[in-house]
Amino acid sequence: MKNITNLLPIKYPIIQAGMVWVSGGKLAAASANAGILGVIGAGSMKPELLKEHILKAQSLTKHPERLAVNVPLLYEKSLEQFQMALDLGIKIFITSAGSPKTYTSWLKSCGAIVIHVTSSPELARKCEAAGCDAIIAEGFEAGGHNGRDELTTMVLIPQVTDAVKIPVIAAGGIIDGRGMAAAFCLGAQGVQMGTRFVASLESSAHENFRKAIIHSTPSSTMLVMKKHVPVRLLKNKFYEGIKKLEDEGASEEKLIQELGKGRARQGMLEGNLEEGELEIGQGCSMVRKVQSVEEIVNEVVNDYQKIIKGA
Amino acid sequence: MKNITNLLPIKYPIIQAGMVWVSGGKLAAASANAGILGVIGAGSMKPELLKEHILKAQSLTKHPERLAVNVPLLYEKSLEQFQMALDLGIKIFITSAGSPKTYTSWLKSCGAIVIHVTSSPELARKCEAAGCDAIIAEGFEAGGHNGRDELTTMVLIPQVTDAVKIPVIAAGGIIDGRGMAAAFCLGAQGVQMGTRFVASLESSAHENFRKAIIHSTPSSTMLVMKKHVPVRLLKNKFYEGIKKLEDEGASEEKLIQELGKGRARQGMLEGNLEEGELEIGQGCSMVRKVQSVEEIVNEVVNDYQKIIKGA
Repeated sequence: MKNITNLLPIKYPIIQAGMVWVSGGKLAAASANAGILGVIGAGSMKPELLKEHILKAQSLTKHPERLAVNVPLLYEKSLEQFQMALDLGIKIFITSAGSPKTYTSWLKSCGAIVIHVTSSPELARKCEAAGCDAIIAEGFEAGGHNGRDELTTMVLIPQVTDAVKIPVIAAGGIIDGRGMAAAFCLGAQGVQMGTRFVASLESSAHENFRKAIIHSTPSSTMLVMKKHVPVRLLKNKFYEGIKKLEDEGASEEKLIQELGKGRARQGMLEGNLEEGELEIGQGCSMVRKVQSVEEIVNEVVNDYQKIIKGA
Repeated sequence: MKNITNLLPIKYPIIQAGMVWVSGGKLAAASANAGILGVIGAGSMKPELLKEHILKAQSLTKHPERLAVNVPLLYEKSLEQFQMALDLGIKIFITSAGSPKTYTSWLKSCGAIVIHVTSSPELARKCEAAGCDAIIAEGFEAGGHNGRDELTTMVLIPQVTDAVKIPVIAAGGIIDGRGMAAAFCLGAQGVQMGTRFVASLESSAHENFRKAIIHSTPSSTMLVMKKHVPVRLLKNKFYEGIKKLEDEGASEEKLIQELGKGRARQGMLEGNLEEGELEIGQGCSMVRKVQSVEEIVNEVVNDYQKIIKGA
């Protein structure tokens, strides 16, 4: 099977997802050291903070070429984030939450590799037309922000691989070697994993959040905020408040008001499990212990190889 | 890889799903003839009508041992349906929408094989404890009635196979050989396919409904009626009515009133694409032509084998 180690300077076809409040320089460096793509989630980071994380990651790995930055295009600071990262030698960008047309040509003219995150075959075609090198196709199972059509990884990946010629990286619900093998059967050339790495030793997730993940059950997450921007959350008091409003038919404005400000930071970074927003994937109940990134990668790759050989 | 051809007298580890208004004797016989399990969806059939369909299926195949009946346990007539089918020589039952405890021991004492449909690892354990021979684990992608936890096939199957020792058959979003191969990587020993067979030549689906499927897009379905019994529908005027009420926060009573009576028959059997209820899986947009069951099975199995060999 073809895989993205031809496109990216990594040993295994795995991308550690860029995640707000969770994937800083430490996690990205651990991922690069383990042979996969280490991604700093720029999220709403100010350029100076992003600089700190990139420098930290570069100081902690002998494989700086395996470092990437995930830039959501919905913030004002995107251009400054790109410029800062390029100046520091970053050559791989993952873009999301915006049009692939906006920055792809320019980034490519700067010598960068560009991968855009999509949740539909239609958007995948637009990414290809915009000149992206690859696509991350993210299913309904994924934590955090999510597509409106609710296409699951099982249904999304074959349709995206049919729609484009560039490599497709599968995301959403991939926790172990079984998920990785399944994604390859569906036509993917790589996988992006987020949830499993949230509960790694090197993530910036608060210990309370990591504990909540390893004690979660299959029914612990749900997709909400569909009238605004759909987001998959670990159920807690904050989630129940949103859910109640939705069941009552609340407007988008009312939902945004309930959402408030800084809830994600409060939950994921500061560990407030009641009032905070806890973004996590549906596969969280398959994560049963906190492990180092190296341990996770070795386990996933070994299990994947066993399954493929047994097939 | 182990597969359910050890348990069931079939050539390929595929089950044609029992579906209300769609899978009568003709479809079940075509499936048995093609080497897979042919399932008559008893749904709300009166015992006399079920008898007709069983006799018809038996008359159309040289493999009556490959015929099964799917009995949803929520109707009053379940016991009569079982009795009728047993009297006619049916030895394989798929039960759903009720407790696996109710009939499993009795059916097994009559010499039957019993497979229960679940949508969570917790219920899978209950099926095993009740003595079921196998489990069909059905993900969020599936058409028609659906689990409350919205667990997708990708996330559900590994957790169910971890939870029980009896064989697990994957359902939900499996349309072609890629999906079948993925399901096996996730730990399944067989697959159940519904949507693909709705658009077969031998299904009882109205021609209008079959056409709607082969012209559907990835965003054509959605799960609704979550306050009552969640159901995945092809979007149409009927769906829009339900959706509008839900967005306004309508009560379960109001939704049931909007649902009305006989909508599924009106849509799927009679072909009223506006006012009828059209139950279909999320993978419908991967079905691009109406084919015979034999053609479908050969295509799926050949593609599956190619993928497994290429892995």
